[in-house]
Amino acid sequence: MRRYLPILDWGRSYNRASLTSDLIAAVIVTIMLIPQSLAYALLAGLPPEAGIYASIAPILLYAVFGTSRALAVGPVAVVSLMTAAAVGEVAAEGTAGYASAALTLAALSGGILMLLGLLRLGFIANFLSHPVISGFITASGLLIATSQLKHILGIDAGGRTLPEMLAGLWRHLGETNPVTLVIGICATAFLFWARRRLRPALARLGTPPVLADVLTKAGPVAAVVVTTLAVRLFDLDARGVAVVGVVPQSLPPFTLPGLSPELIGRLALPALLISIIGFVESISVAQTLAAKRRQRIDPDQELIGLGAANLGAAFTGGYPVTGGFARSVVNFDAGAETPAAGAFTAIGLAIAAVALTPLLHDLPTATLAATIIVAVLGLVDLSILKKTWAYSRADFTAVSATIAVTLLVGVEAGVASGVGLSVLMHLYKASRPHVAEVGLVPGTQHFRNINRHDVVTSERLLTLRVDESLFFVNARVLEDLIQRRVTEGCAITDVVLMCSAVNAVDYSALESLEAINQRLRDMGVGLHLSEVKGPVMDRLAATALIRELNGRVFLSQYDAWAALSKNRAAQA
Amino acid sequence: MRRYLPILDWGRSYNRASLTSDLIAAVIVTIMLIPQSLAYALLAGLPPEAGIYASIAPILLYAVFGTSRALAVGPVAVVSLMTAAAVGEVAAEGTAGYASAALTLAALSGGILMLLGLLRLGFIANFLSHPVISGFITASGLLIATSQLKHILGIDAGGRTLPEMLAGLWRHLGETNPVTLVIGICATAFLFWARRRLRPALARLGTPPVLADVLTKAGPVAAVVVTTLAVRLFDLDARGVAVVGVVPQSLPPFTLPGLSPELIGRLALPALLISIIGFVESISVAQTLAAKRRQRIDPDQELIGLGAANLGAAFTGGYPVTGGFARSVVNFDAGAETPAAGAFTAIGLAIAAVALTPLLHDLPTATLAATIIVAVLGLVDLSILKKTWAYSRADFTAVSATIAVTLLVGVEAGVASGVGLSVLMHLYKASRPHVAEVGLVPGTQHFRNINRHDVVTSERLLTLRVDESLFFVNARVLEDLIQRRVTEGCAITDVVLMCSAVNAVDYSALESLEAINQRLRDMGVGLHLSEVKGPVMDRLAATALIRELNGRVFLSQYDAWAALSKNRAAQA
Repeated sequence: MRRYLPILDWGRSYNRASLTSDLIAAVIVTIMLIPQSLAYALLAGLPPEAGIYASIAPILLYAVFGTSRALAVGPVAVVSLMTAAAVGEVAAEGTAGYASAALTLAALSGGILMLLGLLRLGFIANFLSHPVISGFITASGLLIATSQLKHILGIDAGGRTLPEMLAGLWRHLGETNPVTLVIGICATAFLFWARRRLRPALARLGTPPVLADVLTKAGPVAAVVVTTLAVRLFDLDARGVAVVGVVPQSLPPFTLPGLSPELIGRLALPALLISIIGFVESISVAQTLAAKRRQRIDPDQELIGLGAANLGAAFTGGYPVTGGFARSVVNFDAGAETPAAGAFTAIGLAIAAVALTPLLHDLPTATLAATIIVAVLGLVDLSILKKTWAYSRADFTAVSATIAVTLLVGVEAGVASGVGLSVLMHLYKASRPHVAEVGLVPGTQHFRNINRHDVVTSERLLTLRVDESLFFVNARVLEDLIQRRVTEGCAITDVVLMCSAVNAVDYSALESLEAINQRLRDMGVGLHLSEVKGPVMDRLAATALIRELNGRVFLSQYDAWAALSKNRAAQA
Repeated sequence: MRRYLPILDWGRSYNRASLTSDLIAAVIVTIMLIPQSLAYALLAGLPPEAGIYASIAPILLYAVFGTSRALAVGPVAVVSLMTAAAVGEVAAEGTAGYASAALTLAALSGGILMLLGLLRLGFIANFLSHPVISGFITASGLLIATSQLKHILGIDAGGRTLPEMLAGLWRHLGETNPVTLVIGICATAFLFWARRRLRPALARLGTPPVLADVLTKAGPVAAVVVTTLAVRLFDLDARGVAVVGVVPQSLPPFTLPGLSPELIGRLALPALLISIIGFVESISVAQTLAAKRRQRIDPDQELIGLGAANLGAAFTGGYPVTGGFARSVVNFDAGAETPAAGAFTAIGLAIAAVALTPLLHDLPTATLAATIIVAVLGLVDLSILKKTWAYSRADFTAVSATIAVTLLVGVEAGVASGVGLSVLMHLYKASRPHVAEVGLVPGTQHFRNINRHDVVTSERLLTLRVDESLFFVNARVLEDLIQRRVTEGCAITDVVLMCSAVNAVDYSALESLEAINQRLRDMGVGLHLSEVKGPVMDRLAATALIRELNGRVFLSQYDAWAALSKNRAAQA
């Protein structure tokens, strides 16, 4: 029971000190989340209140089911972009069908996460390699920033891929609204400055570090307040500045996601990708924060927690959510000790939804766009290209393909091609296992690569050390290799396979070994195995390979060397 | 030059003894191939002469480009079935479009094989695991045998999947032609008897073994002769017995395969599958036979040889071909020493195509169907289910899925699902690497699994031996594992990763190790590496992991144990 309801764990020892810490963290996070939630809703193509709603029920549900003490769940940039891409395929932005499809997407995503958690299938997130994730997040950051330029310019332009967006911006550039542009540029410049320079500036003025931190985090709020006042005082919406407009003054509504088979069919794959990307983002934040306090995250229970959060979003007018990096770090730094901090944040946002929404009427969308641009440019990290290039060409290929396909074709194609390419390249590498010919290091019982060390060998005895598990993609390679070596080296009478690095032998490899055994027998050559690991030998013991082995199984390579040398001496 | 034209190799030393051996082998193989070629053409849905044409030019071209001395190239059962399935999708059987599409399929298949060979990409054949191939061949054998029952019954029934075929046979069962059925049953019974019992019977009669062998192999020829005579003498075709009919009396014609983009688009994937399945079948026969004479096969050159053979088939009225198991073994057993035996076989078949075809007019298709049924039931090997069940559940799953999908959905879906499943299960296994906690075997410098051996451990020092290369599918698993162990064992001050079985570390795993290092540092725990292999260390040396490692890299695990114990002693 406590495994599925972690709240029973921390709830038991909750005390006044934790309450104080959690309340302080909640106030700070709430202030930060109001503009962020509105902005991400805009990015997802949804009305602004959807962003606030998506931050209330999900946070509460995660507090009950999640295992991280500091994770803050809600709308995040990349998932908002993926939502816009997926929902945009089934409905036009601004229609009732669009908002409803976003609910369906959240419901599907919640169901998928919940199912993966209950079936303990979290490992499928591992199919996303780090280079693919980094490439995808970088490309998404670029796409998101570009998509917001139209709000800064005050023009109407669409497009899902980078070239489409740029072409759209170019076409409509003449329609730029100068007042909107001024607001957008000032807000962006201020936010960049606040992000980089505000804290040191405040420190120089003698502000205590904690306060400086809070003020820095409140930068977006300041931008929101100032630009909203500017619009109201100078009546700028009459001059064409787009504003948020009427936001309903209400608690999150109860909504029912549409679940028609046709809609589910079209949204199932995007929901799966959103679930996995969201899970990966969330779990890495959660683990980093947990480690700082020597706490533990249970990945399968995290799937359940995030699943519950997404189902919560689906039934309360939200859209897909996950654990966000920025908000979780703020929550942690502000001293949140338990998920109760999240619950208090939810209460804060509920109050805001009821009391503050009228004040948001004159908020310019350009300010929200500026918030998004400044936030997502922090995600763009092209250094991953340089790092992977230096470390491994295969990983570099995966990163660059993911970035290119995401920018040029779309987010789903980007993830899919990255995953496909990683798997293919892994199999390609595994299909060329490192096989070293080894010899005895004189005066020891150790065997080393003949090309790297000065070792004793015999022209009658060929010893190969296979540095890879044997399975279908490399089984036949070993057949070719042995056949080539034995036909080249006419004096060879015995082949020893040293299996110290062979962690598994699948059925294909077993059959290949049987074929090798048979062929070597036909050539009058013995096949021996040495240093076979326990679990591998347990399996092989009952097979025809061992029964019909044209040679012996030696515990150590030195035993093999000694016995086969003696053998040869006897023959000679 | 000699690499791409192996004929230059063996042609140089060709002599009278080889000539005699090759001529004898050619006569035997020719006699065997006449009925077999007709039968496989029937299976592929093509006119009978296509089978003979497909055995002439391809054999000659393979003799020039192939590396196997004994491989006999031509139509084979599985490829004929796949041809029927692929071509049946784009044209109706019996039309000119059907025969022309078969040429296109051969041309595409030849082009693909040639390309794979020139680019040295033969490794993609390794993606077909042995269980998938066995399952596919078994299921194909069942499909083929079932597809021939309509000829035995003398009825008209279609269907591509097993249930469709059975339903078709059931529906038309009332139309069975009794005379055809008698011929079919007698031929089938005779062939089964000849296959199993003829050789021992002849041996008892004192026939020399070689002659007994030849007579056994000539069983299908006897069935052809006897049933053809029966039709002619008793005028059975007037009683509804379907016969081969008019076969043009000519050498292989020059044909041009249609290469419209639309046809190529629809046949490209089947051609790829046919190429790979054909290549895998051919190379395993070739390697088995080569080993018997300590000869070598070059897989990349084999691709070129088979590619040339298929291109030859495309331009001479044939259809996709590959190296056949039965015919190659007969060729080898009959004493063929060089590919010249194949060339003589081609001449024999050319003579047959010109001189013998009128004699085939009255050959009942039921006899050909019997030939196919007896041949393919030899391919059906359901024991693979039992063997894989005993050895590995994952391999069993792959076999059974491949068999089920091939029978119930179709040949292409069968291969594709088998390959997909093998890759997924391989990644799943790799995602749960074996990680052993190890301790010191007292009195030695060896470290062993604490669960399997009586070893010395320390509650401050956690040593994990990772028995798998670290890459994206298992990188995060290690993060979880270490975080769990360290949060459980509060006294742990140092973690050592013993990397003796880690053959590679990809970029994802590198980042996971960096995250582990960072998190352990946050918990005040040291991270050390031991026994890192040379090539792995070469890569890691320049990374942030090693620069910022919160601990040391030890050459041996014993060094790590000694140093960290001393450390602890000093602290205490």
